[in-house]
Amino acid sequence: MSNYQKIKEYAVHSGNVMDFHEVEIGLPDGGKAYWDLIHHSGGAAVIPVDEDGRIIFVRQYRVGADRELLEIPAGKSEQGEEPLTTIRREMEEEIGYVSDEIEKLMDFYPAPAYSEEKTVIFLARNLKKTEARPDFDEFVEIETYSLPESLQMIRDGRIVDGKTIAGILMLANTGIL
Amino acid sequence: MSNYQKIKEYAVHSGNVMDFHEVEIGLPDGGKAYWDLIHHSGGAAVIPVDEDGRIIFVRQYRVGADRELLEIPAGKSEQGEEPLTTIRREMEEEIGYVSDEIEKLMDFYPAPAYSEEKTVIFLARNLKKTEARPDFDEFVEIETYSLPESLQMIRDGRIVDGKTIAGILMLANTGIL
Repeated sequence: MSNYQKIKEYAVHSGNVMDFHEVEIGLPDGGKAYWDLIHHSGGAAVIPVDEDGRIIFVRQYRVGADRELLEIPAGKSEQGEEPLTTIRREMEEEIGYVSDEIEKLMDFYPAPAYSEEKTVIFLARNLKKTEARPDFDEFVEIETYSLPESLQMIRDGRIVDGKTIAGILMLANTGIL
Repeated sequence: MSNYQKIKEYAVHSGNVMDFHEVEIGLPDGGKAYWDLIHHSGGAAVIPVDEDGRIIFVRQYRVGADRELLEIPAGKSEQGEEPLTTIRREMEEEIGYVSDEIEKLMDFYPAPAYSEEKTVIFLARNLKKTEARPDFDEFVEIETYSLPESLQMIRDGRIVDGKTIAGILMLANTGIL
């Protein structure tokens, strides 16, 4: 068993959406290391499945890739917000659907080496159309694909967003769809 | 088609391992937004499969989760470094193996909303033992699991590292192992 200890953590820069922290770590050999950490309140994503069994994706610009990526709908949780609350909001804002049949599929750390973010992925069925109300800086396009089409896009590199890959592969593994 | 433009990008904080940037984004409606971006030279991970068909994992402390996580071996690429070079080094350092049979399985963005990181996951077979030489602040334990055991640990939440989940599920989906 290793014996790492977080000795101190302090904010070193306050960003627009998230803060950058430095963490002083006590190492098992008694030494110290200084690591970077993105302070993050968590995220939620959803695989919305329509009445034809097709998955609803959004295509949107992502600054990390500096291009548009095909993703499942997702968003950042407010501090202390339940991931289910986050994803109900994001699903309505991004694709204009509500659902009374949302179940948790998985949760994971996208980048645990340097980010606190934990992402919860939900599966939503029995969708009901509402009116999409995008945030002022969200401009997304909606596309739908079957599960086999989605898996093919993961294999051939048309889907390169980590949470989307994890969620779709997990859904295929469960055999639910 | 959306029409986002990266207008300006500048470093706002220099961390120990990575830098924090701010990006000025031109929005499709003519407005502007300011987003955070982690400047990152990329990462590489590997699913090492031993002669019994078992996958070699490492268990190590991750500051983002503030606990030990079970993961496939991985590391950060030096600026401009080929991911294959990165993963050969990390595989030897973390688990003490080399391989002449390494193939690319997939690549993806773990957190494209705020990080430039792109991770390449390889599959390594025909492993040869060398001597593990951990970095001074790396203290890892090695564990091996079959593919069905690994999938079970993803389903029941014992594996919560994003790249490990994506890689193992992808490997299962390909039917290679």
